Amino acid sequence: MNGHGEEGQSAFEIGVVVPRRVLKEGGESDDCVEVLVDEFRKAGLIVDRVLGFQEEFLKLAAPLETLGRAAAELQLKKQTHIGLELPFQWDEAEAFVRQPDGALFSWCERFHCYRHIIYGLMNKGDSVLTLKYDSKEFHWEPGESLLQKLELEGVIKEVFPLHDEIKRKQLLRSWALNGWDFTRQPIDEIYSYFGTKIATYFAFLGMYTRWILFPAVFGLMLQLVDLGSMQLLVLPTFFISVIVWAALFFQFWKRKNSALLARWQISCPVGAGPGCKFLEMEWSSLQLQSPVELLKKWGSDKTKEELFQRGEWTGRLMRFRNDAIVILSIICLQLPFELAYAHLYEVIGSDLMKFGLTVIYLFAIQYFNKIGGKISVNLIKYENNESTEYSADSLIYKVFGLYFMQSYIGIFYHALLHRNFLTLRRVLIQRLIVSEVLDNLMENSLPFLKYSYKKYRAIRKKRKRDKGSSVGKTQFNYRVEKEYLKPSYSASVGEELEDGLFDDFLELALQFGMIMMFACAFPPAFLFAALNNIAEIRTDALKLLAMFKRPIPRAAATIGAWLNIFQFLMVMSICTNCILLVCLYDQEGKWKIEPGLAAIIIMEHILLLIKFVFSRIVPEEPAWVRANRMKNATQAQNVYSKQLLRSISGNEKVSAGLEKIK
Amino acid sequence: MNGHGEEGQSAFEIGVVVPRRVLKEGGESDDCVEVLVDEFRKAGLIVDRVLGFQEEFLKLAAPLETLGRAAAELQLKKQTHIGLELPFQWDEAEAFVRQPDGALFSWCERFHCYRHIIYGLMNKGDSVLTLKYDSKEFHWEPGESLLQKLELEGVIKEVFPLHDEIKRKQLLRSWALNGWDFTRQPIDEIYSYFGTKIATYFAFLGMYTRWILFPAVFGLMLQLVDLGSMQLLVLPTFFISVIVWAALFFQFWKRKNSALLARWQISCPVGAGPGCKFLEMEWSSLQLQSPVELLKKWGSDKTKEELFQRGEWTGRLMRFRNDAIVILSIICLQLPFELAYAHLYEVIGSDLMKFGLTVIYLFAIQYFNKIGGKISVNLIKYENNESTEYSADSLIYKVFGLYFMQSYIGIFYHALLHRNFLTLRRVLIQRLIVSEVLDNLMENSLPFLKYSYKKYRAIRKKRKRDKGSSVGKTQFNYRVEKEYLKPSYSASVGEELEDGLFDDFLELALQFGMIMMFACAFPPAFLFAALNNIAEIRTDALKLLAMFKRPIPRAAATIGAWLNIFQFLMVMSICTNCILLVCLYDQEGKWKIEPGLAAIIIMEHILLLIKFVFSRIVPEEPAWVRANRMKNATQAQNVYSKQLLRSISGNEKVSAGLEKIK
Repeated sequence: MNGHGEEGQSAFEIGVVVPRRVLKEGGESDDCVEVLVDEFRKAGLIVDRVLGFQEEFLKLAAPLETLGRAAAELQLKKQTHIGLELPFQWDEAEAFVRQPDGALFSWCERFHCYRHIIYGLMNKGDSVLTLKYDSKEFHWEPGESLLQKLELEGVIKEVFPLHDEIKRKQLLRSWALNGWDFTRQPIDEIYSYFGTKIATYFAFLGMYTRWILFPAVFGLMLQLVDLGSMQLLVLPTFFISVIVWAALFFQFWKRKNSALLARWQISCPVGAGPGCKFLEMEWSSLQLQSPVELLKKWGSDKTKEELFQRGEWTGRLMRFRNDAIVILSIICLQLPFELAYAHLYEVIGSDLMKFGLTVIYLFAIQYFNKIGGKISVNLIKYENNESTEYSADSLIYKVFGLYFMQSYIGIFYHALLHRNFLTLRRVLIQRLIVSEVLDNLMENSLPFLKYSYKKYRAIRKKRKRDKGSSVGKTQFNYRVEKEYLKPSYSASVGEELEDGLFDDFLELALQFGMIMMFACAFPPAFLFAALNNIAEIRTDALKLLAMFKRPIPRAAATIGAWLNIFQFLMVMSICTNCILLVCLYDQEGKWKIEPGLAAIIIMEHILLLIKFVFSRIVPEEPAWVRANRMKNATQAQNVYSKQLLRSISGNEKVSAGLEKIK
Repeated sequence: MNGHGEEGQSAFEIGVVVPRRVLKEGGESDDCVEVLVDEFRKAGLIVDRVLGFQEEFLKLAAPLETLGRAAAELQLKKQTHIGLELPFQWDEAEAFVRQPDGALFSWCERFHCYRHIIYGLMNKGDSVLTLKYDSKEFHWEPGESLLQKLELEGVIKEVFPLHDEIKRKQLLRSWALNGWDFTRQPIDEIYSYFGTKIATYFAFLGMYTRWILFPAVFGLMLQLVDLGSMQLLVLPTFFISVIVWAALFFQFWKRKNSALLARWQISCPVGAGPGCKFLEMEWSSLQLQSPVELLKKWGSDKTKEELFQRGEWTGRLMRFRNDAIVILSIICLQLPFELAYAHLYEVIGSDLMKFGLTVIYLFAIQYFNKIGGKISVNLIKYENNESTEYSADSLIYKVFGLYFMQSYIGIFYHALLHRNFLTLRRVLIQRLIVSEVLDNLMENSLPFLKYSYKKYRAIRKKRKRDKGSSVGKTQFNYRVEKEYLKPSYSASVGEELEDGLFDDFLELALQFGMIMMFACAFPPAFLFAALNNIAEIRTDALKLLAMFKRPIPRAAATIGAWLNIFQFLMVMSICTNCILLVCLYDQEGKWKIEPGLAAIIIMEHILLLIKFVFSRIVPEEPAWVRANRMKNATQAQNVYSKQLLRSISGNEKVSAGLEKIK
């Protein structure tokens, strides 16, 4: 291998936590942890054992070859130099494209390989092995995964990816604490450290922040400058420019996403997401069959087609049913509750009562969200989604419905029924400031508090145990132990499907909805949002780098369901702003259609048209990305077509022969 | 080869028309027609010479091998059994998937090969050959295409595809004259006879006709049954169900189109149209370079990327400018004209004046359309569209804008300004009947008349020449001569970009717009449309089979721009029907918003939502098609990955070595 970028491979990237035991002399050979370490070493991993306060930590690293062999076993598909994605082969590693940072495998692929290696430690003999853990004994059956067995027995407490101290510090400097260059982020380094999904989030956040500066400045100007008689036209102008801005933003985001994918050697075009994931799925389910079998199985039988049709439609019906359940329960249960709160808040006079009501309400919605999340996760289990990323998207839609109602219906109530624009503005400012200050604070302080508490408890336990032996300062000596105590980057709903990105995206989407849907009521909101986002980039970066365990990398390389949600919010905002304008210009409640109302309705339709025209005329994939992709495909076929053809027609003859025999 | 489906290959498929000459004895060797026939035969074609009245016809047929060798020279990409599309190789013909009818090449591919063969007849020697035509002499330079030379000199009058009499008669029986099974069509046979584009048109027409039966029956029922007090709700119900019907129809059409493509072994998914075509383009421009050159050229140079970006945006701006020109001129020039006509027609009392006005108007719009078409074609020349099919789409959009204004603005005028629903209904019925009867009649009689006139003229000339020699009946003895006299299947605008399908689709789209946009005004219109379409299938089939020359096959396999136009009409119809409902329920012109108007506006928004939700939740590609495609891809990679990888990494080493040398 070329040797560049390989030094990073020897860093310890996975931690396995086992309890600290009293080691007996001589009895080591069948102690389960010793066996585990032995097996790790046999599998080609480098193991570093660290004794912490209460636990023992096994830090694992893998030389490139170990990873490569695992990738070959996994038939991991990688981009080759001719553009085709092919299953990895260790002997032909030269044929595969390297990452932007020079490494052969991305962090996501490495993690996948690690998982494959450590969960693939089987008892390869024929006899049952007896393992000991402290005084307990248990049997390791042939063909059973050692790690799963140990997890089941409670010996292994956790397996988690470790931070890479060098890269982490580098990122902290260049990213989280990078003071004044507001929106520039080292996306490629983020990608190689955290994987595609998180890097995509930050790329989106950065681009969103850069773009939002325009309406922020515009909104501020409108607030400060008094245009006299033109004042009536100011809000519609702002509204139109904001909608155009948003439509352009999403199209250009899609382009940027395509460009990122091309840079990261991920061959799926943004639009073709489902197919790409499906491919992986199909691949794993088909790879065990021989091609001849496949040819037979897939032949031209119509029944297969019908089967697929049926499967497709039942799956779709199931999902439709679930969505209907969620939507109906949101409308029937949540809507009245929210309206009741908004109404009571408006009706009650005393401030104390109002405060009490809000406290009760806040507790209630916490509870609501938790229940909603659980129900959604359960519903999704009955859907046959093609991959976990599909299920995660399905969850996002369902839970977002909940938050959507929660966040906006109260504001609508103020806007529409009471036509109280001052209250509306106050509520908007309140919420934006709350989200800016409180959320960012909470995001960082909560995990820190959790970590501190865990640390404190661990130290106290240690002290209790060591009572009298040493009264000096007790400190953590090992980084890995500190990391173990840090909370993991997980979502507030449905941990098994989503990670902490859910909450970060949710925050962003709710903010976007807030500023867009009520753009006419309060133009300077964009400035709040812009400031918030500049802070958000840094707090999120800090959170990921310092507060949490290193997150498990996810393969998805688009913002997925969130893009649809953002676009939905944008379309909604066209409608809501029109309603707001009607309310604003029609203070007497005459509802006469001419000329104002008609103008507003026509404007709404034109804006809707613009949105859909933009999504047509701005191509989602930059021409150079497409050209690159096409070039790869044609090149591959150009170079290897002859030998491929020979083998295909040879293969044909074989299968034709087989059929004749039958 | 297997021998099945090959008998069709020996049919004569191309006709070349040369003038009938007075043959001199002995001087044949340098007569250009003799040379041409010789060259044809040398190229492996079978030539049949037919002496007609005035012209001589060279009927060409090609054995499979000749076609195969031409396809290999063309590097024609074909689907292989493992799912990859690879350039055709004659020696490995077994590796390629056959057509549904058992032939190796589709009609479109065959035509492409024929063209390649006959236009590829070069003077391969070093010396200039002197050819004679009657008394004229001209020089055939080395490396010059003989056919182009002869076309330039006026010796070859036309090259056109010939009808295949056996298949034509079969299709006439099973399709055009197939009496009572309304909508069933032998799509596969149409495909193998006319190529993808025409088969797709008929598949669309058939499905549209089948689907339209539902609203036709529903609309008729509404007309016949009197619901008493519920009458007010009838029209909105009809409106909603029609919109839902249309939204479903288009989604299911996309699915059907995908399925058709899969059946015809065309690998482009419907959504990815542009990429697919682009691929072909790229392919032809890249195939001359060696892979090593390509690797260098495409390397990681950023300038290339910027170049692409710039090219992409200037192209887009150009197109945007053109569209703006077209839209502005339609609004500024055509709209006032149409409104003036509608207004005058309403104002003028005397019927004679009205008639006169209409005649003038009809002449004027004929002229308008011609000018519009010419301007559009000229504008498109400045766009750098990636392929002719793109240019054709661009033309379709532009010309449709013209027809859209022309067809609907007058009706709107009646509906909105005069609120004269009776006139509106009368106009609708008028137009539908006119389009039904007149268009169908014209479509078939006009080409027949043209043909008869040409025939008559030919016979008269012949008689003049043969004066006195024979006074008996003069008849055409050869089918090929009759075919030559038939008009070709060409569009009324922009012959070089579109063929007769343009007019057929235009008719369909205008009809769809008419019935959808005014659905609330006249529900039984759907019945008219359904009857019209049942007739349309037959008349169009008859037209293609009996009235015209066999059309030149086109490779595009979707209905392209027309799908977007249909969907645009559908969205428009949501808005127009809402306006109609407002007019209908608000006869006094009060324009009070509550409760009717508000309900209608809300309904409009919900329908728009439904349209876009449907286009999300109904997948455009059936699961089995996708699975099939994926299976192919994975299979290919499964079987051949190892040998591919070896050659890639070998190739890598070579190019790395090359770079080192430099």
